[in-house]
Amino acid sequence: MNNLTKMKINRPASEVFEAFVDPAKIGSFWFSSSSERWEAGKMVTLRYDEYYAEVVVKITDIETNRKIVFEDEEGNTTTITLKEENPSTTIIVVNEDGFDEKDVEGLIDNKEGWVYMLTCLKAYIECGISTLRAALVK
Amino acid sequence: MNNLTKMKINRPASEVFEAFVDPAKIGSFWFSSSSERWEAGKMVTLRYDEYYAEVVVKITDIETNRKIVFEDEEGNTTTITLKEENPSTTIIVVNEDGFDEKDVEGLIDNKEGWVYMLTCLKAYIECGISTLRAALVK
Repeated sequence: MNNLTKMKINRPASEVFEAFVDPAKIGSFWFSSSSERWEAGKMVTLRYDEYYAEVVVKITDIETNRKIVFEDEEGNTTTITLKEENPSTTIIVVNEDGFDEKDVEGLIDNKEGWVYMLTCLKAYIECGISTLRAALVK
Repeated sequence: MNNLTKMKINRPASEVFEAFVDPAKIGSFWFSSSSERWEAGKMVTLRYDEYYAEVVVKITDIETNRKIVFEDEEGNTTTITLKEENPSTTIIVVNEDGFDEKDVEGLIDNKEGWVYMLTCLKAYIECGISTLRAALVK
């Protein structure tokens, strides 16, 4: 089963794309750090310093300014698709696939993470705000 | 079944409370309008101009700067609890109860809405940003 989340971001697709692949930017809206620039075939280590956690993902496909696909250690595949409606507006679509449909709690928790990250991303690239991340309380 | 979401907001509880109950503020982070100030016993009409939608909620309990409880037209009860950790930090806890546990899609969709609203609220009262709302795409 999959989790699908879509959001409108009032910036060009190239800026949304760079926010993910450029390791200097991810710490403003999602993980605290990314080990290197995202490119197809690379293994990238993503750290959450606040939660003493890290995850390694494999970047399986990249289309510049259009698509990013990666697999995590649990075998789930996430596809980030960017649809530029006009030069100043992009619809970002995040689809994570691979869930057991009986894992309702896992699906809800996963949805929480994607919506939170996307809203922090929107605040970061539209408004330059990088202080919203890492505030969900478990 | 319930949906529980918690977020840290770096502002006093009184500011978080006022963001909900003051109809001049809700349009900066959640619905586009609220018909009146939230007080116990009142029926309040909340409009989403962007989606041509409105919902009427009954405010069933209010404790100033601490708790807001309301019921929606479908019989779900939402409890918003504010826990001020110190004069500049509040943990906001939103619990919506009344879901059929088999309605997985409804639960996931509901989680999306709460996380999005809370992140927009955080951006609004921490940073004065009121342009993030109404960007989820269905």
